Amino acid sequence: MDLPVIQPGRSTSTRTPVFGKIGIVGLGLIGGSIALAAREIWPAALVIGVDNKDVLETAMRLHAIDVAADDLIVLAEADLVILAAPVRQNLALLQELDENVRTPAVVTDVGSTKRQIVEAGKALPPRFTFVGGHPLGGAAASGLEHARPDLFKGRPWLFTPDGDASGQAVEKLLAFVEALGAVPKVVDVATHDRILAFLSHLPQLTASALMHTVGEAVGDEGLALAGRGLIDTTRLASSSSEIWKDIAATNADELGVALDTLIGILQELRSDLSSGERLTDIFENASHWRKRLTK
Amino acid sequence: MDLPVIQPGRSTSTRTPVFGKIGIVGLGLIGGSIALAAREIWPAALVIGVDNKDVLETAMRLHAIDVAADDLIVLAEADLVILAAPVRQNLALLQELDENVRTPAVVTDVGSTKRQIVEAGKALPPRFTFVGGHPLGGAAASGLEHARPDLFKGRPWLFTPDGDASGQAVEKLLAFVEALGAVPKVVDVATHDRILAFLSHLPQLTASALMHTVGEAVGDEGLALAGRGLIDTTRLASSSSEIWKDIAATNADELGVALDTLIGILQELRSDLSSGERLTDIFENASHWRKRLTK
Repeated sequence: MDLPVIQPGRSTSTRTPVFGKIGIVGLGLIGGSIALAAREIWPAALVIGVDNKDVLETAMRLHAIDVAADDLIVLAEADLVILAAPVRQNLALLQELDENVRTPAVVTDVGSTKRQIVEAGKALPPRFTFVGGHPLGGAAASGLEHARPDLFKGRPWLFTPDGDASGQAVEKLLAFVEALGAVPKVVDVATHDRILAFLSHLPQLTASALMHTVGEAVGDEGLALAGRGLIDTTRLASSSSEIWKDIAATNADELGVALDTLIGILQELRSDLSSGERLTDIFENASHWRKRLTK
Repeated sequence: MDLPVIQPGRSTSTRTPVFGKIGIVGLGLIGGSIALAAREIWPAALVIGVDNKDVLETAMRLHAIDVAADDLIVLAEADLVILAAPVRQNLALLQELDENVRTPAVVTDVGSTKRQIVEAGKALPPRFTFVGGHPLGGAAASGLEHARPDLFKGRPWLFTPDGDASGQAVEKLLAFVEALGAVPKVVDVATHDRILAFLSHLPQLTASALMHTVGEAVGDEGLALAGRGLIDTTRLASSSSEIWKDIAATNADELGVALDTLIGILQELRSDLSSGERLTDIFENASHWRKRLTK
């Protein structure tokens, strides 16, 4: 599969904020970590957090934000709006920007699927420039309490801009995430969703399906005998169904292809347990890719 | 699924060797770790290693064994024989014991499937008592170079004795593995193979199938973007096809059931990506079992 990637080489040597008023909607692991990093890097910038009151209280306690509100109206003068809620909430939030944000603003998101929101972003009034974004990696645990300013250090942060229309906004976003320590890459939006279906969405669904299957079959007494193999393979199975329902729904076609491919391989293994010829091929090939993955 | 487990409570307070002449056939991670532990615990015991010349050289260098040979004849006076080669090699080795081991001996193995070898063990001449064994857990990396005497500390070691016939041999084996730090449990042989199909064999095949699927789909450029999720979920995918071909072949019926169950769950997920109702159920159930697994 081709992956057209443009790797920018700039660096930010000045602490002049790339954006002066940064609005972050959704203070989970990602939104919270962006907030912590932005406050640390640009003391002169204003970091505005929007979430429910419980989360805002935690965010204030962690000194993650300067301004806390449970209403988008607080973003009236933001020059950067980051949508960091689950994917379909971000889609809904996009519709509310026009009536709340009064100034020209760059708008981005951090969701795991990009085609739907990039399409929706095109319908924003012209004072907004939407550029889809996706920081990769993250941590094992989700939620604001696990947020940390170095979460993005050395990790790819993908952007899926819409052609040339968003040129200057992209430049600023690249500078913004580079300052956060991330490695920005620009990638075609369809390619993003196809690759992430295999790289991230398929492993997640597989880990959850496996944990469900094993737990139901062997119960507590059986699980007490489990070794590191099962524990590592199902690490993702504690992920939030709310977040993943949205991801699956907004990437259903590509994720469907990925699931069909995996199901096909499992069926090949299943039909060849006694001879093991296909098993040998698949294991050796898997071992090859595993080496490439961890090299 | 019921798991009839008898948890013995004895402890070994004396350093008198449980077995005086311990033959280990196959010095990989497990066999090598048993050897290292036995030499450490019972200086008076003789640890005899059988493998090919390269492995024996390493074993001598690591001081893992007292006697090295590439021929079973060296086991002539062993009172314990541990078969620690891949499962089907253990089955073949069982046939060679009569002509090589001259004294009464307890024979056990460390393979991941138990029904075939327990059945084959019944055909040994009456001076041998075969008791199927299976130390669980192990380490991420295989091979003698990763062997260590504390590999079994706190880990379950399952035995599948054949009714009352093997009473005294079982007692001695329980004492032997307890001295190694393991937690011995006696379990019904069919139950063993059914539970291990889900607990160990299914996760292994799933991890390899997933790594194969993802690697083929996204290639090196895609894998460069992978995060911890894929890396953890596919950790098992570097496992040896030789070992797993044997395990799959000797547990094909139970592993087939496990694979069918997982494939069924993946198909349910696949047919419900847009609504996400079934996905929510499966994710929440998986999250529950994951908590039980890591509690």
